[in-house]
Amino acid sequence: MINYPNGKRYSAGIAGREKWLKPNFSSSHGNRGMTLEEDLNNTNLYYLSRGIAVIHKKPTPVQIVQVDYPKRSAAVIKEAYFKQASTTDYNGVYKGKYLDFEAKETRNRTSFPLQNFHEHQIRHMEAVLLQGGISFVILRFASTEEVFLLDAAVLLRFWSRMEQGGRKSITKQEIIETGRLIPTGYQPRIDYIKVIDDLYL
Amino acid sequence: MINYPNGKRYSAGIAGREKWLKPNFSSSHGNRGMTLEEDLNNTNLYYLSRGIAVIHKKPTPVQIVQVDYPKRSAAVIKEAYFKQASTTDYNGVYKGKYLDFEAKETRNRTSFPLQNFHEHQIRHMEAVLLQGGISFVILRFASTEEVFLLDAAVLLRFWSRMEQGGRKSITKQEIIETGRLIPTGYQPRIDYIKVIDDLYL
Repeated sequence: MINYPNGKRYSAGIAGREKWLKPNFSSSHGNRGMTLEEDLNNTNLYYLSRGIAVIHKKPTPVQIVQVDYPKRSAAVIKEAYFKQASTTDYNGVYKGKYLDFEAKETRNRTSFPLQNFHEHQIRHMEAVLLQGGISFVILRFASTEEVFLLDAAVLLRFWSRMEQGGRKSITKQEIIETGRLIPTGYQPRIDYIKVIDDLYL
Repeated sequence: MINYPNGKRYSAGIAGREKWLKPNFSSSHGNRGMTLEEDLNNTNLYYLSRGIAVIHKKPTPVQIVQVDYPKRSAAVIKEAYFKQASTTDYNGVYKGKYLDFEAKETRNRTSFPLQNFHEHQIRHMEAVLLQGGISFVILRFASTEEVFLLDAAVLLRFWSRMEQGGRKSITKQEIIETGRLIPTGYQPRIDYIKVIDDLYL
């Protein structure tokens, strides 16, 4: 494990590269299993390699300001800033249908804070729904490792409720009632395609 | 226009940020109109704002190695490298269908070099086709500003031809015969959705 001068730890896990970038990164996750992103990346590779679905996480957008071009070496980005993504993180195709989702995790045991989501992601989900795409969110409760799939239209109702002064979160009970538990296991780790088949196709 | 110490010019055009990153970037394009990427970005914003389609260019993937966290300032990426994308650059949804494409431009007048494409992009297009997604390429001839849409299955045939020792390019005549000219204009600049409607839906 490498620590950088600023104290942040660099982790080169398969899909975990970016987790150290967040200022509130803690290394405690390392002992408890993979991050949600790593599990989804693993799942997506499983789907891809078996010809089940073609789903990828979008790269983190960065605003590149300066690049060096050393002779006989790869270009090095010397200055760049994180940009806010205008879409959700994951999309792809399954049986000709467009799939689109955002994945979030919480340490809370009884509710899921809506502050995990951002206005632009909500607007994107709306736009996808209007185009007849399949849009949803994957929510993991870290304490129990239960993973739920919630349709974007359902999420949008809870988001509206919050905008109108209501709860700033969705209770776990509401998620159980309006969402679906996603089977988890060894391969694939988070079998959301199974739920897509039941719910949408 | 800002020049960086390494002599590269920085251009903050709407979607043109990354064009200066390529070592062979020339500023001559600035006088002749937008880059293909800028025109497509503009087109996609047109589609998005009018509720026609939700298509986005995927951000360039970068491998982030070092980030600084100045107090009360945005995080600054101090060292990063360009990664090769494992998918094509553009995808999204139109009338529930998954759309996926790569866009390339050439200065050649009579043929389109296949070296513009990379193995991983070809494999990705194959995977998308197998899943029943709509996959194609947008090819622009810079000299005449003609823009063509070529179905991925057609591109794959020419790619196989090359792999078997045949031409390393597609002739313009072949593109005219197997592809479709995309209407261009003021708004949207490159109306590929119109061709999608004719060809696929």
